[in-house]
Amino acid sequence: MEKLRIGIAGYGNLGRGVELAIRQNDDMELAGIFTRRAPETVKPLTPGAKVYSINDAEAMKDSIDVLIICGGSATDLPKQTPALAKNFNVIDSFDTHARIPEHFANVDKAAKESGHLAFISLGWDPGLFSLNRLYAESILPNGKSYTFWGKGVSQGHSDAIRRVEGVKRGIQYTVPIEAAMDAVRSGSQPELTTREKHKRECFIVPKEGADLAKIENDIKTMKNYFDQYDTTVHFITEEEFEAEHNKMPHGGFVMRSGLTGDGEKTHQMIEYSLKLESNPEFTASVLICYARALGRLYKEGATGCKTAFDIAPAYLSKLSGEELRASML
Amino acid sequence: MEKLRIGIAGYGNLGRGVELAIRQNDDMELAGIFTRRAPETVKPLTPGAKVYSINDAEAMKDSIDVLIICGGSATDLPKQTPALAKNFNVIDSFDTHARIPEHFANVDKAAKESGHLAFISLGWDPGLFSLNRLYAESILPNGKSYTFWGKGVSQGHSDAIRRVEGVKRGIQYTVPIEAAMDAVRSGSQPELTTREKHKRECFIVPKEGADLAKIENDIKTMKNYFDQYDTTVHFITEEEFEAEHNKMPHGGFVMRSGLTGDGEKTHQMIEYSLKLESNPEFTASVLICYARALGRLYKEGATGCKTAFDIAPAYLSKLSGEELRASML
Repeated sequence: MEKLRIGIAGYGNLGRGVELAIRQNDDMELAGIFTRRAPETVKPLTPGAKVYSINDAEAMKDSIDVLIICGGSATDLPKQTPALAKNFNVIDSFDTHARIPEHFANVDKAAKESGHLAFISLGWDPGLFSLNRLYAESILPNGKSYTFWGKGVSQGHSDAIRRVEGVKRGIQYTVPIEAAMDAVRSGSQPELTTREKHKRECFIVPKEGADLAKIENDIKTMKNYFDQYDTTVHFITEEEFEAEHNKMPHGGFVMRSGLTGDGEKTHQMIEYSLKLESNPEFTASVLICYARALGRLYKEGATGCKTAFDIAPAYLSKLSGEELRASML
Repeated sequence: MEKLRIGIAGYGNLGRGVELAIRQNDDMELAGIFTRRAPETVKPLTPGAKVYSINDAEAMKDSIDVLIICGGSATDLPKQTPALAKNFNVIDSFDTHARIPEHFANVDKAAKESGHLAFISLGWDPGLFSLNRLYAESILPNGKSYTFWGKGVSQGHSDAIRRVEGVKRGIQYTVPIEAAMDAVRSGSQPELTTREKHKRECFIVPKEGADLAKIENDIKTMKNYFDQYDTTVHFITEEEFEAEHNKMPHGGFVMRSGLTGDGEKTHQMIEYSLKLESNPEFTASVLICYARALGRLYKEGATGCKTAFDIAPAYLSKLSGEELRASML
């Protein structure tokens, strides 16, 4: 069997996760890592892996079946994904929910013009959580959906607290509030405020001589990031920070509370949850299994942009339709 | 917009559930109920609903877009689904896992010959649970999957206890064992025996003068049904039975405990669960939303037999691709 040749564009936490996920799938191989840095400064985890400048990517277009773009959603992906779709089949994890329609249109245009296939906004949210919202809302049209995130590290909030005066190092955990989730599970379909759904926990290593009370106040009152939440600020030592807060766990819950039957009085509850020790490694695992689907759909002649909604589940699995029906249905 | 015309073949609990689910979807209408009983003896919940003999179904073939077959898996569906696929697009909830490949082949042949489209084995297990097994195993290839059922009424086990001498009425609940689920959630990937995963609870109304100790022993030692489980038998009054055990709740859990990363040491946990007050009403809701997908795929020219694995999620929703991307991704 010919292996699917995977390229990785961008070699941060997500890129490394993709590299490791390829190892778990023997129908794929790493065909190259593309970076904006000087290629010789990048040290891949895989012995013998080739590293190229992203500027030389075009020359590699016939050696890569699927290019997984591991840039950030704020500024990288809106440019990179449409640009790279001119020469490659691409997958990204674009996660700025409000800008998805615009990103979709740009990528769709580029991919259709070049005859390539692109999957965007894959991972777990958007991605698996989106799928669960769609399945659950289609099955239970009379109902209410809820998404809770955490417990996990929010990169955006961690960046925000590191910009506060007097903060040397900092990390922020988003924590779903158990009482709110239990209220949803009860079937009461509660209206929940932002404060009732999540709380925020910060662990800070202060700079020497910093005003701790001021740091705490600056964080708790920060507009949009923290002012609508109950926030706890813990001051810890650098040693503790390095020992206890060096991981990127995350996860969350998608719930649908619906009503069926005569008079719509029968309560039906669907719940999906993830508990991830590493957010980037899990996201990478999702991207890699959609790469398999992309390879197959492209062979069938598909072009343009697609999302998780458009891809039949069977395309994700290494197993044949026959094997799937016999073993998993 | 033209409504999707749904026919119901078989008017038991599931058929009534389908009838009620149609009311929740304004892009569909009930086009007729087909029964093996004398049609005039069937009283639909919907005013004005037409009831026909199943023997007259063929005459209605141009008035029905999708026929949902609500028979039993043991003897009805293996015959009905291939037979009705000669004249209709059909959906069933065939749930004898071991016989799915054979059923698929029979239905596929009939549907392809007649140019119709058939979806089989829909509902929640097989159905939504199967989908979750497929997604989770594709994403986390190094891992272990677990399915737990309940708490819920098992029809097969309830039938079995009602055949025990001295039993007037009886119902059996399958109960997942919380300690086993917690062991799975811990990431330890335990090997669990049948007894460790589920227990069984029976509520019995004995006949007058029956030997209670013998009933209890006959149940607990019943081969395959109960001997491999810890079983509790409760004797109750007929009043209590009617007040407390007149519902068909069910549900369950699909879990995948997987490992990713360098050395495959990072634990990742995916969990999907259902808590259903009415098993037949929920199953009906799944069937109805797949009827929408069937109508669309048939218009696109699809024929033959398909399962949940083959159907892209977007087909299930009333919303357009654009609306889905803007609201749910």
